[in-house]
Formats: sequence, structure tokens, C-alpha cells
Amino acid sequence: MQVTTTINETKELIKKWKKDGKSIGLVPTMGFLHEGHASLIQKCREENDIVVVSDFVNPTQFGPNEDLEAYPRDFERDSQLCERIGADLIFCPSPEEMYHDPHAFVSIDLLSETLCGKTRPIHFKGVCTVVSKLFNIVTPDRAYFGQKDAQQLAIIRKMVLDLNFDIEIIGCPIIREEDGLAKSSRNTYLNTQERSAALCLSRAVRTGQQIIQTGMDAEQVLAAMRAVIEAEPLAKIDYISMVDALTMQPVERVDRNVLVAMAVYIGKTRLIDNFSYEVSL
Amino acid sequence: MQVTTTINETKELIKKWKKDGKSIGLVPTMGFLHEGHASLIQKCREENDIVVVSDFVNPTQFGPNEDLEAYPRDFERDSQLCERIGADLIFCPSPEEMYHDPHAFVSIDLLSETLCGKTRPIHFKGVCTVVSKLFNIVTPDRAYFGQKDAQQLAIIRKMVLDLNFDIEIIGCPIIREEDGLAKSSRNTYLNTQERSAALCLSRAVRTGQQIIQTGMDAEQVLAAMRAVIEAEPLAKIDYISMVDALTMQPVERVDRNVLVAMAVYIGKTRLIDNFSYEVSL
Repeated sequence: MQVTTTINETKELIKKWKKDGKSIGLVPTMGFLHEGHASLIQKCREENDIVVVSDFVNPTQFGPNEDLEAYPRDFERDSQLCERIGADLIFCPSPEEMYHDPHAFVSIDLLSETLCGKTRPIHFKGVCTVVSKLFNIVTPDRAYFGQKDAQQLAIIRKMVLDLNFDIEIIGCPIIREEDGLAKSSRNTYLNTQERSAALCLSRAVRTGQQIIQTGMDAEQVLAAMRAVIEAEPLAKIDYISMVDALTMQPVERVDRNVLVAMAVYIGKTRLIDNFSYEVSL
Repeated sequence: MQVTTTINETKELIKKWKKDGKSIGLVPTMGFLHEGHASLIQKCREENDIVVVSDFVNPTQFGPNEDLEAYPRDFERDSQLCERIGADLIFCPSPEEMYHDPHAFVSIDLLSETLCGKTRPIHFKGVCTVVSKLFNIVTPDRAYFGQKDAQQLAIIRKMVLDLNFDIEIIGCPIIREEDGLAKSSRNTYLNTQERSAALCLSRAVRTGQQIIQTGMDAEQVLAAMRAVIEAEPLAKIDYISMVDALTMQPVERVDRNVLVAMAVYIGKTRLIDNFSYEVSL
């Protein structure tokens, strides 16, 4: 496994691989890899000749009062995990390597304005920009994103369509702890009491998944989920919403494919979870 | 020479050429080709195995009160010119083929906020977006732009740098009529009297080029150029400015590489012209 820190050496390696006719898969990450990331890298390993993992805590997707500085980092452990799964390259540039006095950005309207975009107004502009940069540096045939960041996945799919990137976007299922908590690098922020309180998110997901089978009314599903969260004293709801799976706009009735997504503060830690529901027409 | 109207058939052709190891050059145009475009296509022909010309009047770079509908079109003549110079492909998609309910955009701040960006606030967002799309569709090794649209050229260079497109951007000199008027598809809007009045732009350029040799003061250069335009009754200045060649920000002294650019209305037709001046440090 190779490790690169500069854009130029990465491009050179990729060019050599492409010249040899190899297919390239990319797993963009912010590092501190857990089993969710491992499942993406594993799938990427199965489907491509060359597996590239990017490991970069992207400053442009953090707001001024967010956890950029605190965000956990452990390159040694990341590197061992990638090596074990059989990645060919980890690309871990510095912020200075990725951004020199940047003025060009990629952004998306509509889809970025709901759910997490309300609380994190510049987040998806940062995501679209860094993912576009990684796409141009790595020029992958396929790129892998977790369904846990469901709005991000929908936004990347739309960005690829709108800007005509020739890349297949592959969404992978949420990976959970045995007790149901969705794996996240941010789970490391939780103390013992909070870790236990955080189970209300996956409980609310399961409640939502049951209720949605019984009727068409969005508010009925959301109210039941809200009740689960509100029963947990350490939890504070940022949002719980049902949106159209493609446009990320709120729906009142379950009459198309939907995403039911939430962000909940457990103490100071903001966690997300979601489920998708497909309507057979 | 081949003609494509869809993104998919264009991508397929390009893939075949790339597989054969051919280098690809792209000349993005809005059609109604004149000798300025011809010079770009000619240079592209000399430097690449495959020459692709895109011919697309891009709606997203026109403001609501601009000349999108009136913009001149003549695909037959464009096609003959491309064939004569030896282009391999003209890509002429419909607006519907390029934009399906678009939400993702590429934009650039700072550089887009001066000069033409003041009068045309959404223009460069449209340019950056369509050029990004064309870059992703055609994946050229080199792309050719005229120095006549100097701010556009500076913006595309910065966009390529910031978003890590692996494309060499080649700027080509302004091509002028024998009497000095810079070639432009919009010259076709001018009646006989206006055509003659329009010469004040190139006269102002020549004046600026002389004065700039004699001193460091920007205002001195600009005042002399303004005087040339103001002597022409049919002309109305939109802007005449001296800016840093990289950042497009106004300068007061000629102490670095600069662009001196103007936009002038001749009757209802808005024309642009410019010159660059390099300071040897």
C-alpha cells in the first residue's frame, strides 16, 4: 500500500494505473476510520482493480463554531485498517496542499437547504467542493459513500448528474454497533451516560420503520419518532423530517420514495441517523 | 468530422479516442464562429490528435435582460469552418440536453466580482458551470480560450487550479478586423454608424498601451482611455479598469502584471476589449 500527501504524486500514480487499464475506486473519508468506512473500502476492493482511500479532515465543510479542531484523527490506525483490507493507496494531503487561497467552489441549491443544511449552512458547499477536487485528482470509475450521511449521498448523486462527472456513485448501508447505534467517528465524543442515551436515535429509527408501514401520513411517523427522542432527558432534537428521496424537500404523505432523517444532540455531540422507505408504484 | 448532440454519444467517442492514446483538445464556443474562434481551433489542431469544438449558446451565463434570444446562430457556417480547419468533432447539444432541473453549480468569488461581473452578476457562475460540464464530458488534455474575454480566461485558470482539473488552459491573442475592432459574434448587432463608432474601443486600447509605458499611475492611463471613448457620441462606458492580472482586483500603480479592460455600449450593443501589460520584476 502506498501513501501520498501531494496532489501531483497522486495524479502521477493514478495515470500509471489508468495507462495499464486498471479500474479505480475511491472511498473519500475524513479518517478516524470505523467499521462503516471498512465496509465501503471492502466493497470498493471487491469492485475495482485499484482502491484509493482519501483521508482528509476537510476544513471547508466545518462552520466557524463546529468541531474542526476537536475532530478525532489517528492516521496510524487508519493506515493499518486500509492495509488490512487491501487498499492500494491512501491519499492524506494537508489543508495547505488542498487549498491555496481558494476562490472556486461547487455548491448545490435546494437539496442542501433542508435537514443538516439548515443547521450547517456552508457544510454541503464544502463537501461538494472537496469531493469535486478528489474526483478530479483521482478520476475514479466508482466512488463509495455511506447511507448514514444520506443527504450527502443524495447531493453527490445530483452533483455528478448535473456536472456530468463520469463516475458511478455507490451508496452503502449504515453499519451499526451491536446495540443499534450508527457507527460514527463522532461517537468517540460521548461519555458513558451519553453513549447509552444515544441509543434513542436508532430506537426512533426502528419505531419510524414500523409506523411507516401502517399509513401514508408523514406527521404520524414523525410524531412517534419525536416521542422516542423526547423520552430521553440527555437528547435534544435538531430535526426529524421526512423528505423526498431525490429532492430532499419535505413531504406530507408517503406517496413516493422518502428519506426519514434526524439530527439529535446528545449533550454537546450532534449525531445523525436515518432510514429510507421505497414506495412500490 | 463528426457531429454529436448528446452527452452520452460524445463521451463514447472520447472514450474510444482516449483508449487509442489520442490527446484531446477542446475549444468551447457559443457558435457563430469568426476568425477569433478559427485561430483557437487552428492552434488546437496543431497541438492535439483530436480537436473537439463545442457549439452551445449557454443560457445560464445570460442575465434575464440580456441577449440570449437575440444571440446570433448559424450552425451550417460553423460546421463548414470547423470542417475546413480539420476539427474531428462538433458537440452541439440542446439546452435541455445540458440542463435537466439543475441544482449544482460552480462559482468563483473575488475574480468574478469586478469588471464584467459587476454588470453581469450571474455571468461567470454560468460560465464556470458550463465549462466544468464540458471539461467532464470531453476530458480534454488542453482547452483553448481567447484573450478577448480576459476575465473569463483568468477565472477559468483559477477554477482549474482550485478544483484540480488536469487540463492545460491555453490563452490565445485577440483577433481584430483590419481597422482594429476586436472580432466578436456581437459585432453583427452593429449598424453602419455604430460599426464605425465601435472603433473607439481599439483606439482606447492603443492609447492605453502607449501611456502605460510612460509611468506607474493607473489613473493616468485610464483617464486617457476614457477621454478617447468619451469623444465618441454613440459610446457609453460601462467600465474601464486596471486590475491585477491574477486576482482581477483594481490596482492604483502598474507594479505587477495587469489587465486593462473595458466594456462600452455602442448604442444597445455592449462590446469589450482589453490589453495585458507585463511588468518585468
